[in-house]
Amino acid sequence: MTHYTPPLRDMHFVLHELLKVTDTLKTLPPHAEVDVETLNAVLEEGGKFASEVIAPLNQSGDAEGCTLNRDTHEVTAPSGFKAAYAKYVEGGWPSLGCDAAYGGQGLPVTLNQCLYEMLNSANQAWTMYPGLTRGAYECLHAHGTPEQRQTYLPKLTSGEWTGTMCLTEAHCGTDLGLLRTKAEPSVGPSADGSYLIIGNKIFISAGEHDLAANIVHLVLARLPDAPAGSKGISLFVVPKFLVNADGSLGARNAITCGALEHKMGIHGNATCQMNLDGARGWLVGEPHKGLNAMFVMMNAARLGVGMQSLGLTEVAYQNAVAYAKDRLQSRALSGAKAPDKPADPIIVHPDVRRMLLTARAYAEGGRALAVFTALLIDQELSSTDAVVKEDAADLVALLTPIVKAFLTDNAWIATSHCMQVFGGHGYVREWGMEQFVRDARINMIYEGTNTIQSLDLLGRKVLLDKGKKLKKLVLLVQQLIEAEGGDGAMLEFINPLADLGEKVTKLSTELGLKAFTNPDEVGAAAVDYLRVVGHLVFAYFWTRMARVALDHQASDDPFYKAKLATARFYFAYLLPETAALIRSARAGVKPLMAMDESLF
Amino acid sequence: MTHYTPPLRDMHFVLHELLKVTDTLKTLPPHAEVDVETLNAVLEEGGKFASEVIAPLNQSGDAEGCTLNRDTHEVTAPSGFKAAYAKYVEGGWPSLGCDAAYGGQGLPVTLNQCLYEMLNSANQAWTMYPGLTRGAYECLHAHGTPEQRQTYLPKLTSGEWTGTMCLTEAHCGTDLGLLRTKAEPSVGPSADGSYLIIGNKIFISAGEHDLAANIVHLVLARLPDAPAGSKGISLFVVPKFLVNADGSLGARNAITCGALEHKMGIHGNATCQMNLDGARGWLVGEPHKGLNAMFVMMNAARLGVGMQSLGLTEVAYQNAVAYAKDRLQSRALSGAKAPDKPADPIIVHPDVRRMLLTARAYAEGGRALAVFTALLIDQELSSTDAVVKEDAADLVALLTPIVKAFLTDNAWIATSHCMQVFGGHGYVREWGMEQFVRDARINMIYEGTNTIQSLDLLGRKVLLDKGKKLKKLVLLVQQLIEAEGGDGAMLEFINPLADLGEKVTKLSTELGLKAFTNPDEVGAAAVDYLRVVGHLVFAYFWTRMARVALDHQASDDPFYKAKLATARFYFAYLLPETAALIRSARAGVKPLMAMDESLF
Repeated sequence: MTHYTPPLRDMHFVLHELLKVTDTLKTLPPHAEVDVETLNAVLEEGGKFASEVIAPLNQSGDAEGCTLNRDTHEVTAPSGFKAAYAKYVEGGWPSLGCDAAYGGQGLPVTLNQCLYEMLNSANQAWTMYPGLTRGAYECLHAHGTPEQRQTYLPKLTSGEWTGTMCLTEAHCGTDLGLLRTKAEPSVGPSADGSYLIIGNKIFISAGEHDLAANIVHLVLARLPDAPAGSKGISLFVVPKFLVNADGSLGARNAITCGALEHKMGIHGNATCQMNLDGARGWLVGEPHKGLNAMFVMMNAARLGVGMQSLGLTEVAYQNAVAYAKDRLQSRALSGAKAPDKPADPIIVHPDVRRMLLTARAYAEGGRALAVFTALLIDQELSSTDAVVKEDAADLVALLTPIVKAFLTDNAWIATSHCMQVFGGHGYVREWGMEQFVRDARINMIYEGTNTIQSLDLLGRKVLLDKGKKLKKLVLLVQQLIEAEGGDGAMLEFINPLADLGEKVTKLSTELGLKAFTNPDEVGAAAVDYLRVVGHLVFAYFWTRMARVALDHQASDDPFYKAKLATARFYFAYLLPETAALIRSARAGVKPLMAMDESLF
Repeated sequence: MTHYTPPLRDMHFVLHELLKVTDTLKTLPPHAEVDVETLNAVLEEGGKFASEVIAPLNQSGDAEGCTLNRDTHEVTAPSGFKAAYAKYVEGGWPSLGCDAAYGGQGLPVTLNQCLYEMLNSANQAWTMYPGLTRGAYECLHAHGTPEQRQTYLPKLTSGEWTGTMCLTEAHCGTDLGLLRTKAEPSVGPSADGSYLIIGNKIFISAGEHDLAANIVHLVLARLPDAPAGSKGISLFVVPKFLVNADGSLGARNAITCGALEHKMGIHGNATCQMNLDGARGWLVGEPHKGLNAMFVMMNAARLGVGMQSLGLTEVAYQNAVAYAKDRLQSRALSGAKAPDKPADPIIVHPDVRRMLLTARAYAEGGRALAVFTALLIDQELSSTDAVVKEDAADLVALLTPIVKAFLTDNAWIATSHCMQVFGGHGYVREWGMEQFVRDARINMIYEGTNTIQSLDLLGRKVLLDKGKKLKKLVLLVQQLIEAEGGDGAMLEFINPLADLGEKVTKLSTELGLKAFTNPDEVGAAAVDYLRVVGHLVFAYFWTRMARVALDHQASDDPFYKAKLATARFYFAYLLPETAALIRSARAGVKPLMAMDESLF
């Protein structure tokens, strides 16, 4: 019952009018030849795949779910998922952003980010199968031995094999230092430098399925001489099927799915309990440095989670708009707008518009931030200018927790609003709206809960380096204020942006001082702080988008009128949240810790 | 996996220490004899029923759902539901608040409200079966003929039969003026003053099930001579089985369940599409005045929905606290709190406490408001003092949309927070937390969406009578400020309460003036306005609760320490939301209506 139209016009706007990405890509040797036409052509084809091939499987996949054969330990994805994946591989989509050395197309992350937004709008559960592959690819690309890279990367690039991340155990998720899975060097005649891995993992997305010939698990485990805690964790590559020297598949490895989790949403993705019963694995990177290696994957995954929520926000918005234009119910308080009909379409009601515009402003603001961050990653990876590279890396580090937590919290708000637009029909499965809400909920939890993201932002990214990274963001804001502050037409955006920029700087300093006295002050303020900085970033992009829109006010293109109206809505209705957030961010740890644990 | 402990201590606090309900009940002839011991004894037994009989069926009922036999059109509720209902009837619970004239116990609404909180904590889906009966009872009690009352009320009172409200049709929910179901006088030999009703209803909760011998449907339909719109709707009582003159059950009536809705939550309750194929019904109240009669039921139902969400907030809180004390993960930022264990329990982390305290403050604040409102209803129904009666009625009218919308929005926030405390485990069904979130979501929609509640509050209850009802609430606030303002220990509560009271008065006046210019201004501001007034009411009760707690600071009872700490948390962390709400409530209709419909 849901529908999805790839938002190509808005993607073109962000890529070419707002960020002018090809100007930046030209400065990066691997992407110097990427032009507007190439980007647009790929997006158009990607959008077709998303809307025509996997979107029709979203509701059916949710209803059907995955099934585990308890005898063979094999998992079957919902009907149609395997065939859609074969088409994805056939179309060359997995290789889009991969290294040409392993058969990839070497296209920029910026482009891949837009593709993933569309795939997630169409079907988040399906997209997690290739999505996790991407993380495994990046981890092995960065930390694998030449032999490991040669063995795995071409197959992950082509999509012939998929990947997973095996981190969580029943007793540890956030605190991986507690993990117990063991790796022992294999001995005796079969000793080949591999390790035998014994343990149990839970919550392994795409841990077992029938989409690909092999699954490449990246597994955290402890070596026999490992120190306790997070400094004793190593990373291993553990293929589902061992790989022969000629690249063909060998014996089934002792890593199997013991059970599937029954979840609130993302039913189409197999969330597996994985048992490692002496599975053979090979060390990736240095002993005991597994967490560092895994963080390469985690950062990519965190941005990926932001894309999931951006995708859900967009598709929920599209469906709610269609319903609000179609559904006739009551008259506008200001008088009938469709007197020829038995009632007005509900889009005439201010609060319905407010719910729709909230989703729209979060989708379009999120898209600008996501593409901007992806372009920074391209600069970080490929710039030949050391300063550009470092600035980009700093901003990516700062923005990653914001993309993850702010976009996923926003999607929870937005999908719930869009469901509300449907009234009772929103609560019923056939309309598909409640699935967006259920799917969106996991994004606030996995790849580090949003609380963990906020601690990463305030504790590590802002306070630990004494605001160095934050200043780079504030500098961007200041440059915009200086550039635009002289234009009277821009003051409605520039004034609140400047005001919030000052408040963020002041709040950061204040929280830094409080953290000296009591480190728990960071934990008390971090979640609010992240949302305040998220709004600063959105206000920055909405100001820039308003600038472009104002430049086209003479044109007849209604796109710019809508953009300007959405910018004004953002400043009038969403930015004011910061007034409350700053107050509670300053409320301090005392009201939280005053109550003795026993009194809860 | 979930557990539930009836919050008897806090109920005793609200009933006897905060509101001293027996002082008020003494002034009401039907309840003059109700004493503290009676109230407490009933609550204790009700709590046992909730926690021991229906709480164990909550997760199983969600997993199993209801089943429809397509041949017989009979619906079977989940395993155990029928037996639990038999126990409920056997225990005399349905009759608690019913009129003694029809076999009821005649106990105050105040007590029934507390019972329903516990039932909903234990199992919202199950509780909807008796819950809707209560609405049908009240509607027939107020509008039925003596014969109708004699026919139906004793059976509804005993619980032998249950009731429903049949309002919604596929094309109309909020706007009942559009409804199409027809009622025609029966003619010919069988003519007995009944009507033949033809039409289709959807979203009928407990519309068909196997718990009771008969189901009494209250159905909205149009008479042949009905004017168009909402002034042409009449109300009919349509029993599933016709009732013979001697009270025994007769023929099966032509009202049957055509399909069950597949919903996001409340799977244990049968949400039915009902087909009326010439079903025999009897007019209740006057022709064309059905909506007025139904509103008796709607108001009771709206308060009931608030109780559902209060119940979910409490039970989600209890489970999240237990998990937060038990789950070991990471160390406190301020240094290890449980150095003998591998990690600290997560309740040491400030943001975990914040999520827990949010749920706690919303539960305890909600309980105070709910019981207060119930006591006003008892006064409205039974006071012999005309002024008391009118004041109570005005406050009930004002508070009803707040109980419905504020408590249900709060439960959405709180259940989601409590689920978040569980990390990934919160997303998995076996822990039961995600069910609370799914169940809580419907409460923001049914019995009038929360947008409709906000329009009812701002448009009808505040502006239409020029603030007369609102002034009665503000007077209560002012009296509290005058009584407590002289006590330095109370200023931390009195000052922000007074500040918010002034802001509400100012905002109400401002919105009233704007509404003159453009009625859509009401629609633009109403949702924020309701939440602001909700916080004013909560701030009022938290101030009063802090007063009682301060009076007991010399005591060793930790209950009062926890109450005071929760009050301080509320003022520090939750009340600040009003800073944002007031800003967006003032943002006006222009940013919402500027974008042409075609540009969405």
